[in-house]
Amino acid sequence: MRHPAASVAFVALAAAAAGAGWPAPLVAIQEGAATKTKLVKQVPLGFSYETGVAQLAAEEQIDARVNPSNLEEWMYRMTRAPFYVGAPHNIENARFTAELYRSWGYETEIVEYEVLFPAPLLRSVEMLEPTPFTASLQEPEIPEDPSSGVDGKLPTYNAYSADGDVTAELVYVNQGIPRDYEELARMGIDVRGKIVIARYGGSWRGIKPKVAHEHGAIGTILYSDPRDDGYFQGDTYPDGPYRPGFGVQRGAVQDMPRYPGDPLTPGVGATADAERLTVEEAPTIMKIPVLPMSWEDALPLLSALEGPVAPPSWRGALPITYHVGPGPAVVRIQLEFDWKLETAYNVIAKLPGSELPEEWIIRGNHRDGWAMGAQDPISGHVVMMEEARVLGELAQQGQRLRRTVVYGSWDAEEPGLLGSTEWVEHNAPELSEKAVAYINTDGSGRGFLGMGGSHSLQTFINEVARSVQDPQTGVTVWERLQAARAVSGSRSAGQKDDISISPLGSGSDYTPFLQHLGIASLNLGFGGESGGGSYHSQYDSFEHYTRFGDPGFLYGAALARVTAKAVSRLANADVLPYQFTPLVGHIRTYRDEVEALVEAARAETETRNALLAARAFELAADPTKTSVPPGALGPVPFLNFAPLDNALARLAGSAASWDGAVAGALKAGRPEVSVELGAALIATERALIRPDGLPRRSWYRHQIYAPGFYTGYGVKTLPGIREAIEERAWDEAAAQIERVAGTLESLAEVLDEAVELLKPSL
Amino acid sequence: MRHPAASVAFVALAAAAAGAGWPAPLVAIQEGAATKTKLVKQVPLGFSYETGVAQLAAEEQIDARVNPSNLEEWMYRMTRAPFYVGAPHNIENARFTAELYRSWGYETEIVEYEVLFPAPLLRSVEMLEPTPFTASLQEPEIPEDPSSGVDGKLPTYNAYSADGDVTAELVYVNQGIPRDYEELARMGIDVRGKIVIARYGGSWRGIKPKVAHEHGAIGTILYSDPRDDGYFQGDTYPDGPYRPGFGVQRGAVQDMPRYPGDPLTPGVGATADAERLTVEEAPTIMKIPVLPMSWEDALPLLSALEGPVAPPSWRGALPITYHVGPGPAVVRIQLEFDWKLETAYNVIAKLPGSELPEEWIIRGNHRDGWAMGAQDPISGHVVMMEEARVLGELAQQGQRLRRTVVYGSWDAEEPGLLGSTEWVEHNAPELSEKAVAYINTDGSGRGFLGMGGSHSLQTFINEVARSVQDPQTGVTVWERLQAARAVSGSRSAGQKDDISISPLGSGSDYTPFLQHLGIASLNLGFGGESGGGSYHSQYDSFEHYTRFGDPGFLYGAALARVTAKAVSRLANADVLPYQFTPLVGHIRTYRDEVEALVEAARAETETRNALLAARAFELAADPTKTSVPPGALGPVPFLNFAPLDNALARLAGSAASWDGAVAGALKAGRPEVSVELGAALIATERALIRPDGLPRRSWYRHQIYAPGFYTGYGVKTLPGIREAIEERAWDEAAAQIERVAGTLESLAEVLDEAVELLKPSL
Repeated sequence: MRHPAASVAFVALAAAAAGAGWPAPLVAIQEGAATKTKLVKQVPLGFSYETGVAQLAAEEQIDARVNPSNLEEWMYRMTRAPFYVGAPHNIENARFTAELYRSWGYETEIVEYEVLFPAPLLRSVEMLEPTPFTASLQEPEIPEDPSSGVDGKLPTYNAYSADGDVTAELVYVNQGIPRDYEELARMGIDVRGKIVIARYGGSWRGIKPKVAHEHGAIGTILYSDPRDDGYFQGDTYPDGPYRPGFGVQRGAVQDMPRYPGDPLTPGVGATADAERLTVEEAPTIMKIPVLPMSWEDALPLLSALEGPVAPPSWRGALPITYHVGPGPAVVRIQLEFDWKLETAYNVIAKLPGSELPEEWIIRGNHRDGWAMGAQDPISGHVVMMEEARVLGELAQQGQRLRRTVVYGSWDAEEPGLLGSTEWVEHNAPELSEKAVAYINTDGSGRGFLGMGGSHSLQTFINEVARSVQDPQTGVTVWERLQAARAVSGSRSAGQKDDISISPLGSGSDYTPFLQHLGIASLNLGFGGESGGGSYHSQYDSFEHYTRFGDPGFLYGAALARVTAKAVSRLANADVLPYQFTPLVGHIRTYRDEVEALVEAARAETETRNALLAARAFELAADPTKTSVPPGALGPVPFLNFAPLDNALARLAGSAASWDGAVAGALKAGRPEVSVELGAALIATERALIRPDGLPRRSWYRHQIYAPGFYTGYGVKTLPGIREAIEERAWDEAAAQIERVAGTLESLAEVLDEAVELLKPSL
Repeated sequence: MRHPAASVAFVALAAAAAGAGWPAPLVAIQEGAATKTKLVKQVPLGFSYETGVAQLAAEEQIDARVNPSNLEEWMYRMTRAPFYVGAPHNIENARFTAELYRSWGYETEIVEYEVLFPAPLLRSVEMLEPTPFTASLQEPEIPEDPSSGVDGKLPTYNAYSADGDVTAELVYVNQGIPRDYEELARMGIDVRGKIVIARYGGSWRGIKPKVAHEHGAIGTILYSDPRDDGYFQGDTYPDGPYRPGFGVQRGAVQDMPRYPGDPLTPGVGATADAERLTVEEAPTIMKIPVLPMSWEDALPLLSALEGPVAPPSWRGALPITYHVGPGPAVVRIQLEFDWKLETAYNVIAKLPGSELPEEWIIRGNHRDGWAMGAQDPISGHVVMMEEARVLGELAQQGQRLRRTVVYGSWDAEEPGLLGSTEWVEHNAPELSEKAVAYINTDGSGRGFLGMGGSHSLQTFINEVARSVQDPQTGVTVWERLQAARAVSGSRSAGQKDDISISPLGSGSDYTPFLQHLGIASLNLGFGGESGGGSYHSQYDSFEHYTRFGDPGFLYGAALARVTAKAVSRLANADVLPYQFTPLVGHIRTYRDEVEALVEAARAETETRNALLAARAFELAADPTKTSVPPGALGPVPFLNFAPLDNALARLAGSAASWDGAVAGALKAGRPEVSVELGAALIATERALIRPDGLPRRSWYRHQIYAPGFYTGYGVKTLPGIREAIEERAWDEAAAQIERVAGTLESLAEVLDEAVELLKPSL
């Protein structure tokens, strides 16, 4: 199962002809026995001509040294046994990771936190009416996949569900998100005192029991409909990559949009001696029992429902007519958990910078998995390891990075970003001062480079993507992504400008860095061609990943090249490679979106109220079915966007001034390395947070990006404004507009200061 | 199972107070024991004040006399045995219908045609590889539905399939329409020499084997996917109305978009002595074998396919991963038919007009069904009978209609509109001279009034719809339809102007009247709340219809009121109630649509060719799967729409002139009854046909409305222009623009003549 190294080994010997001025010189490249030269047309963002040519030579070495065989070897070793929080193999993997980092020259420590990690003592779902049925709640072994037969796994469950023993009629609530309950209300169906069953999808899973509880339900069942990741999508495991009938999606259900991390220690590191809330006090623990199941377990329950036929978009791919209920199915859920503390082991590995050791480039991937976690998270973790190996070995050979690089192998991400969050909370002052950027990866696959993050890094990461070859097509990963966007119609054929990166919501370890501390972040990974349904099941195995995820680890190697170059450029740049004009462009778009939301709310209000006045809902409804007209809507005021527009105008000027100034300075030669300038640039993303955070969730401080209160992972940009509008809280929306305007003014001030600091080099 | 008559009987006694001038007087109404009066605010279109008040009084009698019990009694009787073309019970039903018409005072005859009607001698579908399987091709009896146990039914088949014995690998082609083959080509799949399996939907069924044959397939299987009318949509029969697992959609597959009716006698009546093509010569008979089946029969075939996973929109609701093939499933189809002539019996019943007997209002519904046809067609046929009874009895009591009314109970509609088409072709000269309008119904249900037809009748039929009560809500059927349109967003709440009627494609007996002879036509029926999946199966039964179709026949009664009033108004109007401004408005919309099609073709061409130049299809494709870039597209010229715009401008003037002139004339009093004016108005819709018809299908002569060459039932407006653009035949499109412009000029001339003829009354 080993793969040969990439067929052509490039070894850059040196940056040659580092002569004066443009056009650029040649870099000598060793290709097999021959030495070739390569014309340097352009140096990376943030580099002067001289340092940029050296950087490109170093990157030739990165390209050459990345070895996919290492990824496969490490994944194989790390996925021999389950490695959830507290599992022996997770601790072994932490030690193994730490040893390797040490061997590559990193200052390495294992940092421990004591976190709440409930494990199930009792799990039972029975149908009492109309036909007795007991759910298996088991994922059986698949003979073709030895990993599925390995012992020691946690059973299938949702971490941070409440304990409970509830019996009630069942209601099918589609994806269980707020608009589904609006639809239920139109059907005259109330879930108070009922147990709801929701299919996965449409939001992060933790939203579903939260919204069910808000509507008065007393229990929640989550299941994986075959429409979403099973046979409707493609052949099921082991014939293909999709979720088999008995595959279950485990996962946490704490109220992460309020705060992630250990539920008992919000805002502070979960050290052994930290002050803790009790389980009863912890606001992010679900208030009702919730349990996931396979569709094979869910089918008898769904088949037993009567009542209205579910609306077309609610229907899955099971061979039944989907009914909503309530009942006649009556279901009993019994859940009991051991509410124990468990030790989470983060491996923290540092390579101190040669010139600017107080400026940190942080790189992370979680290491814990729900079961055999080959894809999630080991596929990304081994990428991070290989990248660290290459950079560490280059440093050992004398090519030290100018800034400090910190690697974080996070534990306890699966239950809710615990390892990263506790470390960030624990080290907040130092990180706030020193962190230049955080680069995250998580499970990765085959296909197209996904780029999400802070838009101050959009230009930077586009450049990196233009420098790495796609293993399948021979063009760069940027060109392949551009081709896909062109075919899908979101860009034009042959378009050359930067591809927009996605704003970040949540779902991986960038959240505490970006949204709590305001550290510019990126989240990177390949996907789009390795689709499947192993997510959070025991079938996310080495066998599955090497057949369907990234056979040969060629995309893993490509991702290691992307992340290694990104880390290396950030660490070596003369001036930190932020560009703010793209950020301004995106904020303008978000501003237009939120204004359009207000206009849409106004139009919806007028239409709905006119329909009610005309009795149209009543007259259009089938009188043989229950149909309740929606409620009348209150008036929508016009909001004053002028403060935001004024702040954006000022910020646009400051951004253009910085982006232009730095280009001029670097063209003029290598600028003075200035600690003050670095500090000012580090402060730019910090300027986008407000210490008291977002309304009703102060942990989330970023004013541009947040996970949605009712989406969980899905991003809400300008979240304070947007969610106030969505909730029709007009006064709050007006206040949030002012607040975001002030935030943008702060960033403009920081940028103006940075321009001043750069002037000596101009 | 009998229902009481409508609870309040309205009996209009007389038109009282027929005094001079506006405002209008009162009409006396008998309501139970009491006499009420009703204020006449407005008289119907085409009536002067005096005649209009009398007409409204007559319509009160129509409302009162329609009796839903008759509908139920006749449906019960007519659905006791199968009544396909040539079936004994069909002939009995013809005699029964004729006797009733005679008893109501109609001059009634049974008109016979000798039509080709193949019946199966051999039907067999076997899978030979990878697992032997023989399709049952049977619809079993359902104990709850005695009709399903009645003997004498035709087996499930597609009429006018070719004979054949073919064996080949199977390919799943989704709906089997042209764009599906484009998608197959992208997957590198060629159906030449293969057997295709297509699900119903997306086009009329006859398109599917035609397109399969055009692409080189040697056989076609059609099946009913549960996504389209089975369990995905709702509970299946007998629990609910949807198609059970073994339900089969029978139906004709002759090439109707070329010409409908008897395949052997195109353009002429299929009288016993007509000249006939041989079966081999008949161009509308399919060239490959084709057979329908249930999903229970199709499931083993679809499950046995491998090859690419079908694109998301191709996937049905069966619990499998849909694969495209080809193979490894190998299928053998054997079909043999008895290519016999059968006698079709049209019942033609006439009520000669008292004043203008040479102006005919024609009303029709077919009488033949595939099996027990309660919904299709008897639900509409009994409506037509009840309406004829009321009008006939009113005439017998002295309230004769001024124009002649002709009722057609068509035989042999199911195999391809044979009864109506042969009658129209046989009587073309007389119909061309005399027919004012044709009003069609077919199967009908519960819910909202569907109104399709010639836009010269849009104002007229909107007025009729405003005069009939909806049985469920108490508002008019117009108001209920308006409410539904408002809720769906296609109209505003409280919108008062006329609801657009749909242009007619094909699928029922209006086609020969409208599209061959240019007789202004309407197609009417209720639906939207009686959804189900009994269509063309043996479960379309009295039991099914009275449970799910229209329990109590309340909507059938409402439809009888709509059609009786429509017939009565057309027959009694002082001036035929055409209005042309709405027609002009619709033609303008169609003109804008076809221009937008050209622009869309231009944009698609540029985008596609740019993507090809950038190798984007290739780079975006998953290299582990076969993906063939689409072909480059030729340039799209700019077309000259000026002739059409000039003709539309002229027609708009003439239409406004007529619409205004007739309103003025009727306000001035009852105009002279003029045979010449009637003839001119009858000639208006005739002006929209061209004797040599559409390109490649001269039988279809209407220049504004036609069924699509590749949709079958679905309408193509401005078909000559639109289909040329769709086929990228730019020279033909340019020629068709000129041709339609000339057609519109002809209509303008006829209207100008009508205005001249009306002038004496102004």
